[in-house]
Amino acid sequence: MQKRTAFFVSDRTGITAEMLGHSLLTQFDGVRFNEVTLPFVDSLEKAREVVERINHQGTADGARPLVISTLARTEIAQAIGQSSALFLDCFEIFISPLERELGIRSSHAIGRTHNVSDFVNYHNRIESVNYALSHDDGVSNRQISDADVVLIGVSRCGKTPTCLYLAMQFGIRAANYPLIPEDFSTMRLPAQLRSLRGKLYGLSIRPKRLQQIRNERRPGSQYATLANCEFEVREAEALMRQEGIPFLDATSKSVEELATTILHEAKLVRRIY
Amino acid sequence: MQKRTAFFVSDRTGITAEMLGHSLLTQFDGVRFNEVTLPFVDSLEKAREVVERINHQGTADGARPLVISTLARTEIAQAIGQSSALFLDCFEIFISPLERELGIRSSHAIGRTHNVSDFVNYHNRIESVNYALSHDDGVSNRQISDADVVLIGVSRCGKTPTCLYLAMQFGIRAANYPLIPEDFSTMRLPAQLRSLRGKLYGLSIRPKRLQQIRNERRPGSQYATLANCEFEVREAEALMRQEGIPFLDATSKSVEELATTILHEAKLVRRIY
Repeated sequence: MQKRTAFFVSDRTGITAEMLGHSLLTQFDGVRFNEVTLPFVDSLEKAREVVERINHQGTADGARPLVISTLARTEIAQAIGQSSALFLDCFEIFISPLERELGIRSSHAIGRTHNVSDFVNYHNRIESVNYALSHDDGVSNRQISDADVVLIGVSRCGKTPTCLYLAMQFGIRAANYPLIPEDFSTMRLPAQLRSLRGKLYGLSIRPKRLQQIRNERRPGSQYATLANCEFEVREAEALMRQEGIPFLDATSKSVEELATTILHEAKLVRRIY
Repeated sequence: MQKRTAFFVSDRTGITAEMLGHSLLTQFDGVRFNEVTLPFVDSLEKAREVVERINHQGTADGARPLVISTLARTEIAQAIGQSSALFLDCFEIFISPLERELGIRSSHAIGRTHNVSDFVNYHNRIESVNYALSHDDGVSNRQISDADVVLIGVSRCGKTPTCLYLAMQFGIRAANYPLIPEDFSTMRLPAQLRSLRGKLYGLSIRPKRLQQIRNERRPGSQYATLANCEFEVREAEALMRQEGIPFLDATSKSVEELATTILHEAKLVRRIY
Protein backbone atom coordinates (compact mmCIF):
# COMPACT_ATOMS: atom_id res chain seq x y z
CA MET A 1 0.00 0.00 0.00
CA GLN A 2 1.26 3.45 -0.96
CA LYS A 3 2.23 5.63 2.01
CA ARG A 4 2.25 9.42 1.91
CA THR A 5 2.61 12.24 4.37
CA ALA A 6 0.11 15.07 4.07
CA PHE A 7 0.82 18.40 5.74
CA PHE A 8 -1.99 20.79 6.58
CA VAL A 9 -0.31 24.18 6.86
CA SER A 10 -1.88 27.43 7.98
CA ASP A 11 -0.98 30.86 9.29
CA ARG A 12 -3.76 30.40 11.82
CA THR A 13 -5.13 27.33 13.61
CA GLY A 14 -5.04 25.02 10.59
CA ILE A 15 -8.46 23.63 11.45
CA THR A 16 -9.99 24.58 8.09
CA ALA A 17 -7.04 23.16 6.14
CA GLU A 18 -7.11 19.94 8.10
CA MET A 19 -10.87 19.47 7.80
CA LEU A 20 -10.77 20.06 4.05
CA GLY A 21 -7.57 18.06 3.58
CA HIS A 22 -8.82 15.13 5.61
CA SER A 23 -12.06 14.90 3.67
CA LEU A 24 -10.17 15.05 0.35
CA LEU A 25 -7.81 12.29 1.43
CA THR A 26 -10.63 9.97 2.50
CA GLN A 27 -11.49 9.85 -1.21
CA PHE A 28 -8.33 7.82 -1.85
CA ASP A 29 -8.75 4.31 -0.52
CA GLY A 30 -5.50 2.91 -1.81
CA VAL A 31 -3.16 5.15 0.20
CA ARG A 32 -2.20 5.22 3.85
CA PHE A 33 -1.80 8.85 4.86
CA ASN A 34 0.26 10.21 7.68
CA GLU A 35 -1.51 13.51 8.44
CA VAL A 36 0.38 16.35 10.12
CA THR A 37 -1.05 19.77 10.96
CA LEU A 38 1.33 22.73 11.18
CA PRO A 39 -0.53 25.79 12.52
CA PHE A 40 0.55 29.41 13.06
CA VAL A 41 3.07 29.52 10.18
CA ASP A 42 2.91 33.30 10.11
CA SER A 43 6.46 34.40 9.32
CA LEU A 44 8.99 33.68 6.59
CA GLU A 45 11.29 32.18 9.17
CA LYS A 46 8.67 29.65 10.23
CA ALA A 47 7.86 29.00 6.58
CA ARG A 48 11.49 28.09 5.94
CA GLU A 49 11.48 25.67 8.86
CA VAL A 50 8.33 24.08 7.47
CA VAL A 51 9.91 23.68 4.04
CA GLU A 52 12.85 21.92 5.62
CA ARG A 53 10.57 19.62 7.55
CA ILE A 54 8.52 18.80 4.45
CA ASN A 55 11.59 18.05 2.34
CA HIS A 56 13.06 15.92 5.09
CA GLN A 57 9.85 13.93 5.35
CA GLY A 58 9.79 13.43 1.59
CA THR A 59 13.27 11.96 1.67
CA ALA A 60 12.38 9.71 4.59
CA ASP A 61 9.16 8.51 2.91
CA GLY A 62 10.70 8.06 -0.52
CA ALA A 63 7.66 9.90 -1.94
CA ARG A 64 6.96 13.58 -2.06
CA PRO A 65 4.53 14.86 0.55
CA LEU A 66 1.24 16.62 -0.09
CA VAL A 67 0.62 20.11 1.29
CA ILE A 68 -2.90 21.46 1.67
CA SER A 69 -2.83 24.92 3.12
CA THR A 70 -4.70 28.09 3.94
CA LEU A 71 -2.14 30.87 3.76
CA ALA A 72 -3.40 34.41 3.40
CA ARG A 73 -0.08 36.15 2.77
CA THR A 74 1.34 35.60 -0.69
CA GLU A 75 4.99 35.61 0.36
CA ILE A 76 4.42 32.86 2.92
CA ALA A 77 2.51 30.76 0.39
CA GLN A 78 5.33 31.30 -2.09
CA ALA A 79 7.93 30.23 0.46
CA ILE A 80 6.05 27.01 1.22
CA GLY A 81 5.62 26.50 -2.53
CA GLN A 82 9.42 26.12 -2.73
CA SER A 83 9.28 22.77 -1.01
CA SER A 84 9.42 19.49 -2.91
CA ALA A 85 5.76 18.74 -2.04
CA LEU A 86 2.63 18.86 -4.16
CA PHE A 87 1.38 22.24 -2.98
CA LEU A 88 -2.34 23.06 -2.95
CA ASP A 89 -3.14 26.36 -1.28
CA CYS A 90 -6.81 27.23 -0.88
CA PHE A 91 -6.19 30.96 -0.78
CA GLU A 92 -3.91 31.04 -3.77
CA ILE A 93 -6.38 29.00 -5.79
CA PHE A 94 -9.57 30.80 -4.75
CA ILE A 95 -8.51 34.41 -4.23
CA SER A 96 -7.80 35.18 -7.91
CA PRO A 97 -11.22 34.15 -9.26
CA LEU A 98 -12.86 36.01 -6.37
CA GLU A 99 -10.83 39.14 -7.10
CA ARG A 100 -11.84 39.01 -10.76
CA GLU A 101 -15.49 38.41 -9.88
CA LEU A 102 -15.70 41.17 -7.27
CA GLY A 103 -13.53 43.60 -9.19
CA ILE A 104 -11.42 44.46 -6.15
CA ARG A 105 -8.15 43.32 -4.67
CA SER A 106 -8.07 41.19 -1.54
CA SER A 107 -6.12 42.33 1.48
CA HIS A 108 -3.91 39.22 1.67
CA ALA A 109 -3.81 39.64 5.42
CA ILE A 110 -3.48 36.95 8.03
CA GLY A 111 -6.37 36.28 10.35
CA ARG A 112 -8.51 39.37 10.05
CA THR A 113 -9.83 38.75 13.50
CA HIS A 114 -10.14 40.72 16.67
CA ASN A 115 -12.49 43.27 15.24
CA VAL A 116 -15.89 44.07 16.73
CA SER A 117 -17.64 41.10 15.17
CA ASP A 118 -15.06 38.74 16.65
CA PHE A 119 -15.66 40.06 20.12
CA VAL A 120 -19.37 39.60 19.54
CA ASN A 121 -18.76 36.06 18.31
CA TYR A 122 -16.52 35.33 21.28
CA HIS A 123 -19.05 36.63 23.73
CA ASN A 124 -21.92 34.71 22.11
CA ARG A 125 -19.94 31.53 22.06
CA ILE A 126 -18.95 31.71 25.71
CA GLU A 127 -22.48 32.60 26.72
CA SER A 128 -23.88 29.70 24.71
CA VAL A 129 -21.37 27.23 26.14
CA ASN A 130 -22.21 28.41 29.65
CA TYR A 131 -25.87 28.10 28.81
CA ALA A 132 -25.45 24.52 27.62
CA LEU A 133 -23.48 23.65 30.75
CA SER A 134 -26.00 25.11 33.15
CA HIS A 135 -28.95 23.56 31.33
CA ASP A 136 -27.48 20.13 30.83
CA ASP A 137 -29.52 17.05 31.61
CA GLY A 138 -32.43 19.02 33.02
CA VAL A 139 -30.28 20.19 35.92
CA SER A 140 -32.05 22.23 38.49
CA ASN A 141 -35.33 23.95 37.91
CA ARG A 142 -33.77 26.84 36.12
CA GLN A 143 -35.91 28.41 33.51
CA ILE A 144 -35.31 26.93 30.13
CA SER A 145 -37.88 29.09 28.38
CA ASP A 146 -35.05 31.26 27.04
CA ALA A 147 -33.47 28.33 25.20
CA ASP A 148 -33.30 28.43 21.41
CA VAL A 149 -33.84 24.68 21.36
CA VAL A 150 -34.34 21.94 23.95
CA LEU A 151 -33.06 18.48 23.06
CA ILE A 152 -34.91 15.57 24.58
CA GLY A 153 -34.29 11.84 24.56
CA VAL A 154 -33.33 8.90 26.74
CA SER A 155 -30.25 9.05 28.92
CA ARG A 156 -26.95 8.65 26.98
CA CYS A 157 -28.34 9.14 23.49
CA GLY A 158 -25.99 12.05 22.68
CA LYS A 159 -27.83 15.15 23.87
CA THR A 160 -24.95 16.77 25.79
CA PRO A 161 -22.26 16.78 23.08
CA THR A 162 -24.82 17.91 20.50
CA CYS A 163 -25.85 20.84 22.72
CA LEU A 164 -22.22 21.78 23.25
CA TYR A 165 -21.49 21.62 19.55
CA LEU A 166 -24.52 23.79 18.78
CA ALA A 167 -23.19 26.28 21.32
CA MET A 168 -19.57 26.20 20.24
CA GLN A 169 -20.00 26.25 16.47
CA PHE A 170 -23.22 28.21 16.02
CA GLY A 171 -23.76 30.16 19.27
CA ILE A 172 -27.11 28.44 19.84
CA ARG A 173 -28.53 28.29 23.37
CA ALA A 174 -29.31 24.62 23.61
CA ALA A 175 -30.73 23.03 26.75
CA ASN A 176 -31.36 19.34 27.14
CA TYR A 177 -33.78 17.32 29.16
CA PRO A 178 -33.81 13.57 29.66
CA LEU A 179 -36.88 11.42 29.08
CA ILE A 180 -37.05 8.93 31.94
CA PRO A 181 -39.19 5.85 32.69
CA GLU A 182 -41.52 7.97 34.81
CA ASP A 183 -42.47 9.97 31.71
CA PHE A 184 -43.32 6.77 29.88
CA SER A 185 -45.72 5.52 32.55
CA THR A 186 -47.84 8.64 32.10
CA MET A 187 -47.02 9.01 28.39
CA ARG A 188 -46.87 12.73 28.92
CA LEU A 189 -44.06 15.22 28.53
CA PRO A 190 -42.34 16.33 31.74
CA ALA A 191 -44.25 19.35 33.11
CA GLN A 192 -41.37 21.75 32.45
CA LEU A 193 -41.43 20.97 28.76
CA ARG A 194 -45.11 21.29 28.01
CA SER A 195 -45.10 24.99 27.30
CA LEU A 196 -41.98 24.66 25.14
CA ARG A 197 -43.37 22.31 22.52
CA GLY A 198 -42.22 24.44 19.58
CA LYS A 199 -38.63 24.35 20.81
CA LEU A 200 -38.32 20.64 21.41
CA TYR A 201 -36.20 18.41 19.23
CA GLY A 202 -35.69 14.72 19.90
CA LEU A 203 -32.73 12.39 19.62
CA SER A 204 -33.22 8.68 19.42
CA ILE A 205 -30.75 5.82 19.08
CA ARG A 206 -30.72 2.14 18.22
CA PRO A 207 -31.14 0.05 21.41
CA LYS A 208 -28.04 -2.08 20.73
CA ARG A 209 -25.84 0.99 20.48
CA LEU A 210 -27.41 2.47 23.60
CA GLN A 211 -26.73 -0.74 25.48
CA GLN A 212 -23.05 -0.53 24.47
CA ILE A 213 -22.74 3.07 25.62
CA ARG A 214 -24.56 2.55 28.90
CA ASN A 215 -22.63 -0.60 29.61
CA GLU A 216 -19.33 1.25 29.43
CA ARG A 217 -20.74 3.69 31.93
CA ARG A 218 -22.43 1.29 34.31
CA PRO A 219 -21.32 -2.23 33.47
CA GLY A 220 -23.81 -4.97 34.27
CA SER A 221 -26.56 -2.60 35.49
CA GLN A 222 -30.27 -3.10 34.85
CA TYR A 223 -30.10 0.37 33.24
CA ALA A 224 -27.73 -0.98 30.58
CA THR A 225 -29.56 -4.21 29.68
CA LEU A 226 -30.72 -4.59 26.11
CA ALA A 227 -34.29 -5.20 27.29
CA ASN A 228 -34.34 -1.93 29.20
CA CYS A 229 -32.73 0.01 26.35
CA GLU A 230 -35.29 -1.43 23.92
CA PHE A 231 -38.11 -0.46 26.27
CA GLU A 232 -36.90 3.10 26.82
CA VAL A 233 -36.20 3.81 23.15
CA ARG A 234 -39.57 2.41 22.06
CA GLU A 235 -41.46 4.42 24.66
CA ALA A 236 -39.51 7.61 24.03
CA GLU A 237 -40.19 7.39 20.30
CA ALA A 238 -43.88 6.70 20.93
CA LEU A 239 -44.09 9.71 23.22
CA MET A 240 -42.32 12.00 20.74
CA ARG A 241 -44.55 10.77 17.92
CA GLN A 242 -47.65 11.29 20.00
CA GLU A 243 -46.58 14.81 20.88
CA GLY A 244 -45.57 15.65 17.33
CA ILE A 245 -41.94 16.31 18.24
CA PRO A 246 -39.46 15.80 15.39
CA PHE A 247 -36.57 13.49 16.18
CA LEU A 248 -33.38 12.18 14.64
CA ASP A 249 -31.66 8.81 14.91
CA ALA A 250 -28.28 9.59 16.44
CA THR A 251 -26.87 6.08 16.03
CA SER A 252 -24.66 6.60 13.03
CA LYS A 253 -24.43 10.37 12.83
CA SER A 254 -21.50 12.42 14.01
CA VAL A 255 -22.01 15.25 16.49
CA GLU A 256 -21.50 17.76 13.64
CA GLU A 257 -24.16 16.06 11.55
CA LEU A 258 -26.66 16.06 14.41
CA ALA A 259 -26.03 19.70 15.28
CA THR A 260 -26.12 20.89 11.67
CA THR A 261 -29.29 18.97 10.91
CA ILE A 262 -31.05 20.37 13.98
CA LEU A 263 -29.85 23.90 13.18
CA HIS A 264 -31.38 23.72 9.73
CA GLU A 265 -34.51 21.68 10.37
CA ALA A 266 -35.52 23.66 13.44
CA LYS A 267 -34.61 26.86 11.56
CA LEU A 268 -32.50 28.15 14.44
CA VAL A 269 -30.82 31.51 14.05
CA ARG A 270 -27.11 31.20 14.65
CA ARG A 271 -25.20 33.83 16.62
CA ILE A 272 -21.73 32.92 15.36
CA TYR A 273 -20.48 33.21 11.82
CA MET B 1 -20.86 49.30 -0.82
CA GLN B 2 -21.11 46.23 -3.01
CA LYS B 3 -23.46 43.54 -1.69
CA ARG B 4 -23.15 39.86 -2.59
CA THR B 5 -24.68 36.63 -1.45
CA ALA B 6 -22.26 33.76 -0.86
CA PHE B 7 -23.56 30.20 -0.65
CA PHE B 8 -21.59 27.50 1.11
CA VAL B 9 -22.89 24.26 -0.34
CA SER B 10 -22.02 20.75 0.76
CA ASP B 11 -23.27 17.18 0.55
CA ARG B 12 -22.47 16.92 4.24
CA THR B 13 -22.55 19.42 7.10
CA GLY B 14 -21.08 22.33 5.15
CA ILE B 15 -18.86 23.27 8.08
CA THR B 16 -15.64 22.95 6.08
CA ALA B 17 -17.05 24.95 3.16
CA GLU B 18 -18.33 27.69 5.44
CA MET B 19 -15.12 27.95 7.45
CA LEU B 20 -13.02 28.17 4.31
CA GLY B 21 -15.49 30.43 2.52
CA HIS B 22 -15.85 32.77 5.47
CA SER B 23 -12.12 33.21 5.84
CA LEU B 24 -11.74 33.87 2.10
CA LEU B 25 -14.48 36.51 2.17
CA THR B 26 -12.94 38.35 5.13
CA GLN B 27 -10.12 39.19 2.71
CA PHE B 28 -12.47 41.53 0.83
CA ASP B 29 -13.14 44.62 2.87
CA GLY B 30 -15.15 46.48 0.27
CA VAL B 31 -18.05 44.03 0.05
CA ARG B 32 -20.92 43.24 2.38
CA PHE B 33 -21.57 39.52 2.18
CA ASN B 34 -24.78 37.73 2.95
CA GLU B 35 -23.54 34.24 3.86
CA VAL B 36 -25.86 31.24 3.52
CA THR B 37 -24.92 27.63 4.28
CA LEU B 38 -26.78 24.86 2.46
CA PRO B 39 -25.83 21.48 3.93
CA PHE B 40 -26.76 17.89 2.98
CA VAL B 41 -27.17 18.57 -0.74
CA ASP B 42 -26.75 14.89 -1.54
CA SER B 43 -29.13 14.23 -4.43
CA LEU B 44 -29.69 15.66 -7.89
CA GLU B 45 -33.15 16.75 -6.82
CA LYS B 46 -31.78 18.81 -3.96
CA ALA B 47 -29.07 20.16 -6.27
CA ARG B 48 -31.75 21.44 -8.64
CA GLU B 49 -33.58 23.18 -5.81
CA VAL B 50 -30.31 24.79 -4.78
CA VAL B 51 -29.67 26.02 -8.32
CA GLU B 52 -33.09 27.61 -8.37
CA ARG B 53 -32.50 29.29 -5.05
CA ILE B 54 -29.10 30.60 -6.15
CA ASN B 55 -30.45 31.99 -9.43
CA HIS B 56 -33.38 33.58 -7.65
CA GLN B 57 -31.04 35.25 -5.19
CA GLY B 58 -28.86 36.54 -8.01
CA THR B 59 -31.87 38.19 -9.63
CA ALA B 60 -32.96 39.71 -6.32
CA ASP B 61 -29.43 41.00 -5.56
CA GLY B 62 -28.78 42.26 -9.07
CA ALA B 63 -25.34 40.59 -8.85
CA ARG B 64 -24.46 36.97 -9.33
CA PRO B 65 -23.88 35.02 -6.14
CA LEU B 66 -20.71 33.20 -5.13
CA VAL B 67 -20.75 29.47 -4.41
CA ILE B 68 -18.00 27.84 -2.39
CA SER B 69 -18.64 24.16 -2.02
CA THR B 70 -17.36 20.76 -0.96
CA LEU B 71 -19.17 18.27 -3.16
CA ALA B 72 -17.69 14.83 -3.48
CA ARG B 73 -19.93 13.49 -6.26
CA THR B 74 -19.14 14.84 -9.69
CA GLU B 75 -22.74 14.86 -10.93
CA ILE B 76 -23.91 16.95 -8.01
CA ALA B 77 -21.05 19.41 -8.48
CA GLN B 78 -21.90 19.60 -12.18
CA ALA B 79 -25.55 20.28 -11.41
CA ILE B 80 -24.67 23.13 -9.05
CA GLY B 81 -22.23 24.39 -11.66
CA GLN B 82 -25.24 25.05 -13.93
CA SER B 83 -26.34 27.97 -11.76
CA SER B 84 -25.58 31.55 -12.65
CA ALA B 85 -23.14 31.87 -9.72
CA LEU B 86 -19.36 32.00 -9.64
CA PHE B 87 -18.79 28.36 -8.71
CA LEU B 88 -15.72 27.31 -6.72
CA ASP B 89 -15.79 23.68 -5.64
CA CYS B 90 -12.94 22.50 -3.42
CA PHE B 91 -13.26 18.88 -4.47
CA GLU B 92 -13.39 19.60 -8.16
CA ILE B 93 -10.36 21.86 -7.92
CA PHE B 94 -8.24 19.66 -5.65
CA ILE B 95 -9.15 16.12 -6.61
CA SER B 96 -7.58 16.17 -10.09
CA PRO B 97 -4.09 17.23 -9.01
CA LEU B 98 -4.28 14.70 -6.16
CA GLU B 99 -5.30 11.92 -8.57
CA ARG B 100 -2.38 12.77 -10.85
CA GLU B 101 0.05 12.90 -7.94
CA LEU B 102 -1.08 9.65 -6.34
CA GLY B 103 -1.57 7.82 -9.62
CA ILE B 104 -4.98 6.49 -8.60
CA ARG B 105 -8.61 7.52 -9.06
CA SER B 106 -10.59 8.93 -6.19
CA SER B 107 -13.83 7.31 -5.14
CA HIS B 108 -15.94 10.46 -5.59
CA ALA B 109 -18.14 9.26 -2.78
CA ILE B 110 -20.07 11.34 -0.31
CA GLY B 111 -19.08 11.30 3.32
CA ARG B 112 -16.97 8.22 3.65
CA THR B 113 -17.86 7.94 7.26
CA HIS B 114 -19.27 5.34 9.54
CA ASN B 115 -16.36 3.00 9.22
CA VAL B 116 -14.38 1.68 12.17
CA SER B 117 -12.26 4.79 12.57
CA ASP B 118 -15.38 6.96 12.77
CA PHE B 119 -16.75 4.89 15.58
CA VAL B 120 -13.43 5.21 17.35
CA ASN B 121 -13.48 8.97 16.78
CA TYR B 122 -17.05 9.21 18.01
CA HIS B 123 -16.26 7.23 21.12
CA ASN B 124 -13.14 9.25 21.89
CA ARG B 125 -14.96 12.50 21.39
CA ILE B 126 -17.83 11.62 23.69
CA GLU B 127 -15.45 10.29 26.31
CA SER B 128 -13.36 13.45 26.13
CA VAL B 129 -16.39 15.74 26.38
CA ASN B 130 -17.63 13.77 29.38
CA TYR B 131 -14.17 13.99 30.86
CA ALA B 132 -14.08 17.77 30.45
CA LEU B 133 -17.54 18.09 32.00
CA SER B 134 -16.75 15.98 35.03
CA HIS B 135 -13.38 17.66 35.60
CA ASP B 136 -14.51 21.22 35.10
CA ASP B 137 -13.50 23.90 37.55
CA GLY B 138 -11.79 21.47 39.90
CA VAL B 139 -15.14 19.89 40.70
CA SER B 140 -15.05 17.22 43.33
CA ASN B 141 -11.95 15.41 44.38
CA ARG B 142 -11.99 13.11 41.42
CA GLN B 143 -8.64 11.97 40.26
CA ILE B 144 -7.27 14.18 37.55
CA SER B 145 -4.04 12.26 37.16
CA ASP B 146 -5.43 10.64 34.02
CA ALA B 147 -5.88 14.00 32.28
CA ASP B 148 -3.85 14.73 29.16
CA VAL B 149 -3.62 18.34 30.23
CA VAL B 150 -4.85 20.41 33.17
CA LEU B 151 -5.62 24.07 32.46
CA ILE B 152 -5.15 26.45 35.35
CA GLY B 153 -5.90 30.13 35.79
CA VAL B 154 -8.09 32.59 37.62
CA SER B 155 -11.87 32.23 37.56
CA ARG B 156 -13.48 33.25 34.22
CA CYS B 157 -10.32 33.39 32.14
CA GLY B 158 -11.62 30.93 29.53
CA LYS B 159 -10.59 27.52 30.85
CA THR B 160 -13.93 25.73 30.38
CA PRO B 161 -14.60 26.50 26.70
CA THR B 162 -10.96 25.77 25.87
CA CYS B 163 -11.19 22.36 27.58
CA LEU B 164 -14.41 21.60 25.73
CA TYR B 165 -12.91 22.59 22.41
CA LEU B 166 -9.83 20.43 23.07
CA ALA B 167 -12.22 17.55 23.79
CA MET B 168 -14.58 18.11 20.88
CA GLN B 169 -12.07 18.85 18.13
CA PHE B 170 -9.06 16.81 19.18
CA GLY B 171 -10.34 14.20 21.65
CA ILE B 172 -8.03 15.48 24.38
CA ARG B 173 -8.89 14.77 28.03
CA ALA B 174 -8.62 18.24 29.46
CA ALA B 175 -9.34 19.03 33.10
CA ASN B 176 -9.30 22.49 34.55
CA TYR B 177 -8.58 23.84 37.97
CA PRO B 178 -9.07 27.38 39.19
CA LEU B 179 -6.37 29.38 40.94
CA ILE B 180 -8.01 31.19 43.85
CA PRO B 181 -6.88 33.88 46.32
CA GLU B 182 -6.04 31.18 48.87
CA ASP B 183 -3.38 29.83 46.54
CA PHE B 184 -1.83 33.28 46.24
CA SER B 185 -1.45 33.76 49.97
CA THR B 186 0.72 30.65 50.17
CA MET B 187 2.18 31.13 46.68
CA ARG B 188 2.00 27.41 46.21
CA LEU B 189 0.08 25.27 43.77
CA PRO B 190 -3.09 23.63 45.13
CA ALA B 191 -2.14 20.26 46.64
CA GLN B 192 -3.97 18.29 43.95
CA LEU B 193 -1.86 19.82 41.21
CA ARG B 194 1.60 19.39 42.66
CA SER B 195 2.22 15.93 41.28
CA LEU B 196 0.90 16.93 37.88
CA ARG B 197 3.37 19.68 37.09
CA GLY B 198 4.24 18.31 33.63
CA LYS B 199 0.59 18.42 32.59
CA LEU B 200 -0.24 21.93 33.70
CA TYR B 201 -0.88 24.71 31.23
CA GLY B 202 -1.91 28.20 32.28
CA LEU B 203 -4.32 30.75 30.87
CA SER B 204 -4.05 34.38 31.78
CA ILE B 205 -6.07 37.40 30.72
CA ARG B 206 -5.83 41.17 30.82
CA PRO B 207 -7.42 42.50 34.04
CA LYS B 208 -9.70 44.95 32.20
CA ARG B 209 -11.17 42.18 30.08
CA LEU B 210 -11.56 39.95 33.14
CA GLN B 211 -13.39 42.74 34.94
CA GLN B 212 -15.84 43.01 32.01
CA ILE B 213 -16.52 39.28 31.95
CA ARG B 214 -16.91 38.98 35.71
CA ASN B 215 -19.10 42.03 35.86
CA GLU B 216 -21.58 40.50 33.44
CA ARG B 217 -21.70 37.50 35.69
CA ARG B 218 -21.84 39.19 39.08
CA PRO B 219 -22.46 42.88 38.55
CA GLY B 220 -21.05 45.20 41.19
CA SER B 221 -19.35 42.43 43.20
CA GLN B 222 -15.99 42.77 44.91
CA TYR B 223 -14.97 39.75 42.80
CA ALA B 224 -15.47 41.82 39.63
CA THR B 225 -13.66 45.02 40.65
CA LEU B 226 -10.70 46.05 38.55
CA ALA B 227 -8.50 46.14 41.64
CA ASN B 228 -9.34 42.54 42.47
CA CYS B 229 -8.92 41.38 38.88
CA GLU B 230 -5.52 43.10 38.72
CA PHE B 231 -4.50 41.46 41.97
CA GLU B 232 -5.59 37.97 40.96
CA VAL B 233 -4.03 38.11 37.49
CA ARG B 234 -0.73 39.44 38.85
CA GLU B 235 -0.53 36.81 41.55
CA ALA B 236 -1.58 33.96 39.26
CA GLU B 237 1.07 34.92 36.72
CA ALA B 238 3.70 35.19 39.45
CA LEU B 239 2.76 31.76 40.76
CA MET B 240 2.87 30.18 37.29
CA ARG B 241 6.22 31.80 36.58
CA GLN B 242 7.63 30.65 39.88
CA GLU B 243 6.46 27.09 39.22
CA GLY B 244 7.70 27.12 35.63
CA ILE B 245 4.26 26.56 34.16
CA PRO B 246 3.81 27.83 30.58
CA PHE B 247 0.85 30.12 30.07
CA LEU B 248 -0.99 31.97 27.32
CA ASP B 249 -2.75 35.31 27.28
CA ALA B 250 -6.37 34.48 26.40
CA THR B 251 -7.51 38.09 26.03
CA SER B 252 -7.59 38.38 22.28
CA LYS B 253 -7.42 34.78 21.19
CA SER B 254 -10.36 32.72 20.02
CA VAL B 255 -11.16 29.41 21.66
CA GLU B 256 -9.80 27.61 18.57
CA GLU B 257 -6.55 29.52 18.79
CA LEU B 258 -6.12 28.74 22.48
CA ALA B 259 -6.91 25.05 22.01
CA THR B 260 -4.70 24.66 18.95
CA THR B 261 -1.79 26.46 20.58
CA ILE B 262 -1.99 24.33 23.70
CA LEU B 263 -2.30 21.14 21.62
CA HIS B 264 0.91 21.96 19.79
CA GLU B 265 2.97 23.57 22.51
CA ALA B 266 2.18 20.92 25.10
CA LYS B 267 2.71 18.26 22.41
CA LEU B 268 -0.56 16.53 23.24
CA VAL B 269 -1.50 13.46 21.24
CA ARG B 270 -4.89 13.89 19.66
CA ARG B 271 -7.39 11.04 19.57
CA ILE B 272 -9.58 12.46 16.80
CA TYR B 273 -8.56 12.96 13.20
